[in-house]
Amino acid sequence: MAKLWGGRFEKDLTESTEDYLQSIEVDKEMVLEDIWGSQAHAIMLSKQDIISNKDLKEILHWLEKAKKDYLSGKLVLSKQDEDVHMNVEKYLIRGAGPEYGGKLHTARSRNDQVLTDAKLHIRHKILDIKKKILSLQNVFIELAEENLETPVPGYTHTQDAQPITLAYWATAYVSAFMRDLKRLDHAYANVDTNPLGSCALAGTSFPIDRRMTAKLLGFTEVHKHSLDVISSRDFIAETLCALTIHMSNLSKLAEEMVYWSTYEFGILELDDSYTAGSSIMPQKKNPCVAELTRGRTGRVYGALMQLLTMMKGIPMGYNRDLQEDKPPLWNAFDIVGKTLDVTIGMIDTMKVNEERLAELSGANFTTATELANHLVREHGLSFRECHHIVGSLVGELHRKGKNFMDFDEVDKILSGQGVKVSFDEMRNIFDPRKNIHTYKSLGSTSPREVSKMIREFKKQMDSNIRRIKSQEERIESAQKLTESIVSKVLEGKDIGGIKIK
Amino acid sequence: MAKLWGGRFEKDLTESTEDYLQSIEVDKEMVLEDIWGSQAHAIMLSKQDIISNKDLKEILHWLEKAKKDYLSGKLVLSKQDEDVHMNVEKYLIRGAGPEYGGKLHTARSRNDQVLTDAKLHIRHKILDIKKKILSLQNVFIELAEENLETPVPGYTHTQDAQPITLAYWATAYVSAFMRDLKRLDHAYANVDTNPLGSCALAGTSFPIDRRMTAKLLGFTEVHKHSLDVISSRDFIAETLCALTIHMSNLSKLAEEMVYWSTYEFGILELDDSYTAGSSIMPQKKNPCVAELTRGRTGRVYGALMQLLTMMKGIPMGYNRDLQEDKPPLWNAFDIVGKTLDVTIGMIDTMKVNEERLAELSGANFTTATELANHLVREHGLSFRECHHIVGSLVGELHRKGKNFMDFDEVDKILSGQGVKVSFDEMRNIFDPRKNIHTYKSLGSTSPREVSKMIREFKKQMDSNIRRIKSQEERIESAQKLTESIVSKVLEGKDIGGIKIK
Amino acid sequence: MAKLWGGRFEKDLTESTEDYLQSIEVDKEMVLEDIWGSQAHAIMLSKQDIISNKDLKEILHWLEKAKKDYLSGKLVLSKQDEDVHMNVEKYLIRGAGPEYGGKLHTARSRNDQVLTDAKLHIRHKILDIKKKILSLQNVFIELAEENLETPVPGYTHTQDAQPITLAYWATAYVSAFMRDLKRLDHAYANVDTNPLGSCALAGTSFPIDRRMTAKLLGFTEVHKHSLDVISSRDFIAETLCALTIHMSNLSKLAEEMVYWSTYEFGILELDDSYTAGSSIMPQKKNPCVAELTRGRTGRVYGALMQLLTMMKGIPMGYNRDLQEDKPPLWNAFDIVGKTLDVTIGMIDTMKVNEERLAELSGANFTTATELANHLVREHGLSFRECHHIVGSLVGELHRKGKNFMDFDEVDKILSGQGVKVSFDEMRNIFDPRKNIHTYKSLGSTSPREVSKMIREFKKQMDSNIRRIKSQEERIESAQKLTESIVSKVLEGKDIGGIKIK
Amino acid sequence: MAKLWGGRFEKDLTESTEDYLQSIEVDKEMVLEDIWGSQAHAIMLSKQDIISNKDLKEILHWLEKAKKDYLSGKLVLSKQDEDVHMNVEKYLIRGAGPEYGGKLHTARSRNDQVLTDAKLHIRHKILDIKKKILSLQNVFIELAEENLETPVPGYTHTQDAQPITLAYWATAYVSAFMRDLKRLDHAYANVDTNPLGSCALAGTSFPIDRRMTAKLLGFTEVHKHSLDVISSRDFIAETLCALTIHMSNLSKLAEEMVYWSTYEFGILELDDSYTAGSSIMPQKKNPCVAELTRGRTGRVYGALMQLLTMMKGIPMGYNRDLQEDKPPLWNAFDIVGKTLDVTIGMIDTMKVNEERLAELSGANFTTATELANHLVREHGLSFRECHHIVGSLVGELHRKGKNFMDFDEVDKILSGQGVKVSFDEMRNIFDPRKNIHTYKSLGSTSPREVSKMIREFKKQMDSNIRRIKSQEERIESAQKLTESIVSKVLEGKDIGGIKIK
Repeated sequence: MAKLWGGRFEKDLTESTEDYLQSIEVDKEMVLEDIWGSQAHAIMLSKQDIISNKDLKEILHWLEKAKKDYLSGKLVLSKQDEDVHMNVEKYLIRGAGPEYGGKLHTARSRNDQVLTDAKLHIRHKILDIKKKILSLQNVFIELAEENLETPVPGYTHTQDAQPITLAYWATAYVSAFMRDLKRLDHAYANVDTNPLGSCALAGTSFPIDRRMTAKLLGFTEVHKHSLDVISSRDFIAETLCALTIHMSNLSKLAEEMVYWSTYEFGILELDDSYTAGSSIMPQKKNPCVAELTRGRTGRVYGALMQLLTMMKGIPMGYNRDLQEDKPPLWNAFDIVGKTLDVTIGMIDTMKVNEERLAELSGANFTTATELANHLVREHGLSFRECHHIVGSLVGELHRKGKNFMDFDEVDKILSGQGVKVSFDEMRNIFDPRKNIHTYKSLGSTSPREVSKMIREFKKQMDSNIRRIKSQEERIESAQKLTESIVSKVLEGKDIGGIKIK
Repeated sequence: MAKLWGGRFEKDLTESTEDYLQSIEVDKEMVLEDIWGSQAHAIMLSKQDIISNKDLKEILHWLEKAKKDYLSGKLVLSKQDEDVHMNVEKYLIRGAGPEYGGKLHTARSRNDQVLTDAKLHIRHKILDIKKKILSLQNVFIELAEENLETPVPGYTHTQDAQPITLAYWATAYVSAFMRDLKRLDHAYANVDTNPLGSCALAGTSFPIDRRMTAKLLGFTEVHKHSLDVISSRDFIAETLCALTIHMSNLSKLAEEMVYWSTYEFGILELDDSYTAGSSIMPQKKNPCVAELTRGRTGRVYGALMQLLTMMKGIPMGYNRDLQEDKPPLWNAFDIVGKTLDVTIGMIDTMKVNEERLAELSGANFTTATELANHLVREHGLSFRECHHIVGSLVGELHRKGKNFMDFDEVDKILSGQGVKVSFDEMRNIFDPRKNIHTYKSLGSTSPREVSKMIREFKKQMDSNIRRIKSQEERIESAQKLTESIVSKVLEGKDIGGIKIK
Repeated sequence: MAKLWGGRFEKDLTESTEDYLQSIEVDKEMVLEDIWGSQAHAIMLSKQDIISNKDLKEILHWLEKAKKDYLSGKLVLSKQDEDVHMNVEKYLIRGAGPEYGGKLHTARSRNDQVLTDAKLHIRHKILDIKKKILSLQNVFIELAEENLETPVPGYTHTQDAQPITLAYWATAYVSAFMRDLKRLDHAYANVDTNPLGSCALAGTSFPIDRRMTAKLLGFTEVHKHSLDVISSRDFIAETLCALTIHMSNLSKLAEEMVYWSTYEFGILELDDSYTAGSSIMPQKKNPCVAELTRGRTGRVYGALMQLLTMMKGIPMGYNRDLQEDKPPLWNAFDIVGKTLDVTIGMIDTMKVNEERLAELSGANFTTATELANHLVREHGLSFRECHHIVGSLVGELHRKGKNFMDFDEVDKILSGQGVKVSFDEMRNIFDPRKNIHTYKSLGSTSPREVSKMIREFKKQMDSNIRRIKSQEERIESAQKLTESIVSKVLEGKDIGGIKIK
Repeated sequence: MAKLWGGRFEKDLTESTEDYLQSIEVDKEMVLEDIWGSQAHAIMLSKQDIISNKDLKEILHWLEKAKKDYLSGKLVLSKQDEDVHMNVEKYLIRGAGPEYGGKLHTARSRNDQVLTDAKLHIRHKILDIKKKILSLQNVFIELAEENLETPVPGYTHTQDAQPITLAYWATAYVSAFMRDLKRLDHAYANVDTNPLGSCALAGTSFPIDRRMTAKLLGFTEVHKHSLDVISSRDFIAETLCALTIHMSNLSKLAEEMVYWSTYEFGILELDDSYTAGSSIMPQKKNPCVAELTRGRTGRVYGALMQLLTMMKGIPMGYNRDLQEDKPPLWNAFDIVGKTLDVTIGMIDTMKVNEERLAELSGANFTTATELANHLVREHGLSFRECHHIVGSLVGELHRKGKNFMDFDEVDKILSGQGVKVSFDEMRNIFDPRKNIHTYKSLGSTSPREVSKMIREFKKQMDSNIRRIKSQEERIESAQKLTESIVSKVLEGKDIGGIKIK
């Protein structure tokens, strides 16, 4: 059978053209979506009297059979038939004959059809990623709850800055991921609009009902302007942007895993099951999962750049360039999803070296700021002056190879600057375990503040889970509605009385 | 005066280091924001009894003076002082002396300060861009209202596809821009949270009130988790993503302007004031504005890639890499803003060649789909069969150098396939002016549908304008609140009784 | 069998870790290269008395068997075994037992091994791409030779600029591709250096001979610094850069194909075999191949960005991030190679509409520059003055809806400016067929100049072909050398006397 | 004075259009180049009798004056005049009057002129960058020569891998930079071809001599195909690619500086003059230069992406999009140049902590590979078996909190596996200072091999310096040739006899 669009052509495609044009690798992810979309379209055509009941029954019969054959591996997409749409339509025409099968494509075009398939697919994918992010948040929340008072060196510029708690560090990721979830949610809303019925670019002269197909496919609304529908891929760009920003957050975490598990930092040990050895160096235990996460960030960034490049400077209307919209997005979903899977396990199984943490969080003058704050409060000096006094103190101690634990030395140097701090005060200031409790400000590292934040985060996580559930239920009930109508039609029942609003 | 952070250092920076570290070019956009942020911070410190009334008065006095000196050109940022924060603090210390000026930096760090400045600045910029987008939408709406029935060839694959109306084309941009506005709005919400009070990374032991500074600076809420605040630049990435996607839409429009104004397309003529000549070819009138828009899309894409690269794989906490967050965003705001300005004028002044449009919209078999639809309705054939019949017809006419206006020829060929279409029917089908009225579906090109969409778009535009106004009012009222308190303090009045919630 | 590097580990990888770490999809392109590299390594180990003759014979026996089993589909790479190296080594150990099979990895590491495999593979790929580029140049040269005098409108700013010839347009691509070939050649030289023997990062204490393996693998030199070898991927970045720039050239050509084949330009018609139809619009014949080339430019750009992102900010030494070097390069080779295949056919089969070309090349005042030049020569005016005179003339004609063919009108307007051009002169200036012959400058559009350039291009193409041949011969003779030694060893012959230099 | 190309226009540009089109910021870097190019062009026009001696004298007089006025700040580029070319030509016309000044633009266009200016400028910039890279190499060579035997932990996966020397680490950068130099050299060759005389796109009917201007401007050859000249920006893309790859190498070094100067690694201390303090934390000494280098890598990557985006899918011929070619390149030159400056100083002044290096290079089982190698040699076991034995040994020691220095424990565990290593052998194997001498292979870490590489690198550096000198001399002698002719003409001397070949 020749190309279904071949009427005006005299010559076939060359093999290399055929190979260049086909999108089977990408489309094979959307076979069930294509069939669902076609079922909804056919039901609507019949309800609107554009095709007959008999037409509908034949079409639905062969679509159901296509679904079964696909699931059992009997229907394999062929490159000669270019894409999933043509494969399914040909299957239909082969089965039902052109007089029936040829009617399915009334009042639609591949332009709106492929968008429908893609959007149905992307809805699922976004929800999947969101669930994985929530699982990762959960791992961090658990870690935090167990370590509300565990001191950790807080770094800025990768230099020891101030003592913080492990709970505070862990919840920083929870906090950042909340915004990643929000962005995915905003992208979801942009995806969740019905493109079907836009046809080639201008709509159609057949009396179709786009709200009905929206209902049957579980879309929350109709994307009305048909030329805009056909020409726009911002729903894909927006989804990719959300994934890209999330991946940059995962690369941050990966970097920390790589360095914190070095012999030199010694802050934590990754579980054997998330590391790998060397083919030549017997002693090695390498943080390969974290490294690959860092490296694969490039895949997601590259995917975004790929899409944006494609979108640059092409005119209104469908252009074949747009076929290149799905490969980068599928790629990004795949990488982000798999990265979340291994990250959840890696964080969940890592072992923190509390001894080393205690040592580091007090070492290297991390409590200097609090000393300056103390001087402000007790000596009436301005912060800037206290900063200078403490800076000089640190410089001198450092040059002498000493640290804050040398109370006598500290006392001597401070006294030289006319400042007096008692040994008792020093103990309070320089002990990181005490230090962290002095932070009082909203959103700070103190156990009290972190506990409050944990409570809020849990609420937000619950609300996210509820939202995902309701979105999944909407999709499922639309699927069931379509399936129940299909069943009725195949059983020969009349569907005229069913209202689809 | 040496570096304000110089206490522990023995050596000065080299000149090249100083040059490498400084961010004056970028920071100079945020001088007023830096001063506003400092005023709010100082007021809060005083209300919380962290500094005295006397301290506050001195600080506010010199900050007000700094503002005046800056606006009159007397205060010029110096590279030696690294950034806007150090410049302003030094100005203060020089004026008020270290015993007062040195107190402003109590309970804050440059880490939270720079984020405050940036967010105050970005809020304005996003609102500006949104207003320009709305203006451009307005130009398209006017064009649409005047051309509800003007036929235009609708293109797919840059090949004539189906006749549409100029109004339909124009409103497709309006429709796409609506989502651009939404994305900017979502980014705005992410920007509009108070980072101040996060200090270096851990919060502070001083009893600050972050909700009070939020109020004074017009932020809708506090961004609580202080380590997350300091480490995250997703609010910049998200804003850049929104700008990038919008720029890709502008590049689409630019491409159409370039081609539609060619001699070959001849669809429109750009106004002299948006074109340029050649230094050597006297006849040239080049669509330079549109070309530059297309080319400058690269600047915005590049800016996004710049930011994402910077964000990759850096650990939690402030890292100096983050200083590179603003240059790409400022660059993108600049390009997108200027591009919108010239695009508004270019579209507003272009002249459409209606004669050519009429010719093209009917030429090259654009009405073939409607012929197929007609056959479906009148001959009971399936769409796929009709598609094939019309495809063959077009192929044969094309080879004979004929078109649909050759009714006899059309009749001969169709009859050969057993299909009959009367000359009257042909007249209805093949006339683009009539054809466009047959489109009935929701969101299609028919004047009726486009009119309905225009009404909806206008409502959405109004709602956007109202939203921007309320956001501007919130900012203004916060500014006024701060200013009124500053005035009171400078006048020696007590501010103890003022509630700032 | 557990992981070959598993000695120090107590736990297995999780399934998701295994899946995340493995690189089978990418590595499967390099199985034969891995075996060749191992053969060369084993031969060298034996020649250097690091392993015995008996060891060598066992190893080579099983490597040969692995090759055969791979080619016949019996050896299938398993994800559990992570990569091609571990798969092959395990095959060897299973066959020959650990006492023999375990010796192959003496004095090497996967770090140098994977680079060896990749470089052997990339050498082939670069040569393939170069051959395809030369084929495309050839198509353009043929087109040029047949159209030395065919006038074409030369465009700048997509506006008609000056008449040129089709040969001139075609050879512009030939000229640009010459530099693409040069860049690929430079990248090739960077690829063609032997990494084997660098081991993990520091070299080895075994007395290996890296020049010998270079000889056996056909590398032109040894990449000496072993730490640099292991840490660097600039040879991949450079190859990707060369491919990216070439792809941007192909996107330029694609854009021209899309627009030149519109109804509006009408300059050429693409062959049916390089276009596609619409599922809904029966008349459509879309330039899908060219559009996809334009769109797939994003894949290659994205691949480069992916690699660069990965390379950013990772420290010296092998890091697992580097595993992400091959996916973008393989991807780019695939896209560029396939794009060249279809482009060669598309250009070779397209039909130029000479009638339309003749019409356009003279229309829209393309000969205005020559008129100005004429005035310079004949009237002693400065060019800038003549530019102004002709500019005014064009403006006036345009407003009157006239053109240069209205000799009377032209005469009237010019006379008004005090300038006289005879009708004979006008005929010479305004006829594009004559006009193109007046271009005398080196590298200009005149048939004489283009003919000279074609001769030069042909010489350069010949020299490129010779270069590729000699590179292929070097590779083949190295392969034969390795194979002949393998045969001798398997036949039990002594290889002690063979010098490998 | 109106636009010089304004003949056919009736309306002026709007202010925003003027601002959008102008390129003064970018062009101001090329004023002297523009004047030099114009001088060469004018001399050639006169030698070819296209303009008269009198014309030439007038033109050169005013061009010299423009140069002086520019250098003394009297000639300031104006945005109204769009670009450097129009500014200079207007200056000329104002001074010499249109009858002389108007002749300079005979037989050229801004299209070839801007390329000439840019190429003259880029030649200088590439040579500058190359000289800085050579300086940085020199710093590393000195460091290496002083530290041939200083042990350092060699890392893979940021985990201790094998002991190497500081010299080996330092020369790895020297080795990588050699290829960066080569790529810049290849780009230079692509830049160093004469575009002048290509005119708008087709060449010209005037009898110009493009080889003469090549000589006067120091270009090594003429870029012949004029349409290719005008349309191509691969010379900019290639230069940017070379800079981008080099920047990725600098980001690698920066990452190592950041981590090696942490308290936890403690490998080195950066000099005060290449670090900065914190506004709040008095103890901080942050590696800000290195961090910014890492972060600014994004600028260069973004610049490349900006250029590539611009180049995508624009047709043959000059398009205004191409004006966007210089901003990213200027940006990249600036960042890379400044980064090299600070990096040279940072590396030159850093202090290595030899004690810590000695400790780390032997710690954490870095000598495990050599133990396995030893077992291979002494016990006749296969490498894979030895790898397993040593792996188990390390695992057991690690779990017991012991290391290789516990000879008794090592002996006990090894004996349990039937392997015997004497304490003397252990001393040799486990001491990193001895270990590094065992590496014998070409390009390995042993002092002998590194010394050999240093000698080779020095030769290559010398050869690079000679090459740069000869390129600079070629440029200077061309400048002098042009200047001497200008002087002669201004002095009224005849230049007819001077041969310019």
